[in-house]
Amino acid sequence: MRIARIDVDGTPVHGIVEADKIHLVEDDLFDLGPRTGRTVAVADAKFLIPLEPKTFYAAGLNYAEHVIEVAKANNREPNIPKEAHIGYRANNALIAHNAAIVKPKDASEEFQYEAELVAIIGKQVKNISKADALDCVFGYTIGNDVSERVWQRADRTLWRAKNTDTFAPMGPWIETDVELEGLETTVRLNGREVIRFPTNNMIFGVAHFISEMSKYLTLYPGDMVWMGTEGHAENMKPGDVCEIEISGIGVLSNPVVAEA
Amino acid sequence: MRIARIDVDGTPVHGIVEADKIHLVEDDLFDLGPRTGRTVAVADAKFLIPLEPKTFYAAGLNYAEHVIEVAKANNREPNIPKEAHIGYRANNALIAHNAAIVKPKDASEEFQYEAELVAIIGKQVKNISKADALDCVFGYTIGNDVSERVWQRADRTLWRAKNTDTFAPMGPWIETDVELEGLETTVRLNGREVIRFPTNNMIFGVAHFISEMSKYLTLYPGDMVWMGTEGHAENMKPGDVCEIEISGIGVLSNPVVAEA
Repeated sequence: MRIARIDVDGTPVHGIVEADKIHLVEDDLFDLGPRTGRTVAVADAKFLIPLEPKTFYAAGLNYAEHVIEVAKANNREPNIPKEAHIGYRANNALIAHNAAIVKPKDASEEFQYEAELVAIIGKQVKNISKADALDCVFGYTIGNDVSERVWQRADRTLWRAKNTDTFAPMGPWIETDVELEGLETTVRLNGREVIRFPTNNMIFGVAHFISEMSKYLTLYPGDMVWMGTEGHAENMKPGDVCEIEISGIGVLSNPVVAEA
Repeated sequence: MRIARIDVDGTPVHGIVEADKIHLVEDDLFDLGPRTGRTVAVADAKFLIPLEPKTFYAAGLNYAEHVIEVAKANNREPNIPKEAHIGYRANNALIAHNAAIVKPKDASEEFQYEAELVAIIGKQVKNISKADALDCVFGYTIGNDVSERVWQRADRTLWRAKNTDTFAPMGPWIETDVELEGLETTVRLNGREVIRFPTNNMIFGVAHFISEMSKYLTLYPGDMVWMGTEGHAENMKPGDVCEIEISGIGVLSNPVVAEA
């Protein structure tokens, strides 16, 4: 099932996406009510971020080629993570499907997409085994971890390199029926494919990360975990459109605009 | 005005603290309703965290002596931050005044308090000047940034060193009338004073941090910023009680217990 969150006359409403229609339902996300009978065309919908997360977790370096690329850009030896140590990010950066990524005036040319699988937690868990960890995942969506590489190298934290307003597009919806093995992530810049990789080819998979996290952290419904990205990214510039597709989930599309 | 959030028959309710009584009011925090006429004694109140934050920002290294202490523990030269680069933390770690800090079974002896001033944002702002920055602060509370130093040195992120469940006590309430200059922070371990420092003696003050953050990040009502700590901490062990006082705000008290 695909659950979107859209703006209907100024109010956030959930809906079930079927073909080209969104069937509005009564809230809330983790306990959907009946269909209201009202529908909105996908093409006409004003998408909102699929949820307002409680805690925004991010895996960081979690695909081997990306670790090697980052090390190369920093002139050091690649250091493949040996343990699943989660990081944190800020909600101010989140924007929805179709919303504009705003490139700040003082951002460099190294302004890049990162295509990520996002796991949405639906159950409160602590000390969950790797074997059972996926039981607490409500569904998956797509994230674009927009990154300004000069700031990423220079700053003590990722505060502006990855958390500037609009730097975290996510959506278009949450897909609850996902088989991780076999998923494929594709990024298109202005329609041109720029990278394609097996989504589940992570250093530490979703179940591993959740199980490790839950040894120390209680996970709650509404938490989300961004799972990292693969490979080398190209630069984006105002006027571009960045699309991230994960097979079986959907396409997250965002235009890039210059700061006014 | 001191605004507490307490559990009344299983429901979170705000109240205004006056002397030894909490006068319950109608919600919400940023637009308090009239007093209901009902009061709860401070001594009997079951405190909740003063707010469920939207984004939990943390300044990290923000007092000179603490930077020097941390460098010494890591066998390297102190590197005083030259810019105000904010970090992020996780809501799972938050607990209220009087709630127990749980020391995990596998935590080392280096299990320590960090006394911090916490600024609660009350207005949506972007690009706010340093001169105007304090206008968006609704009030202040006290945070204890509990830290396991072996994990802090060993792990790639602060995920368990500072974000394990119960590692972020905050409270007891939000004080809206605060003059930063002249505040004093005191930590007592089992009643014995272990550190005392001028709260506002930061490398980058509250106004500076908020103004810098707001160049890239929109701050929202309900965001909070933990401002860092000073000096060298002692170890805490199960059975201890850690009290942090900031003059003019109050006393945050939490017992330490061993993981069951």
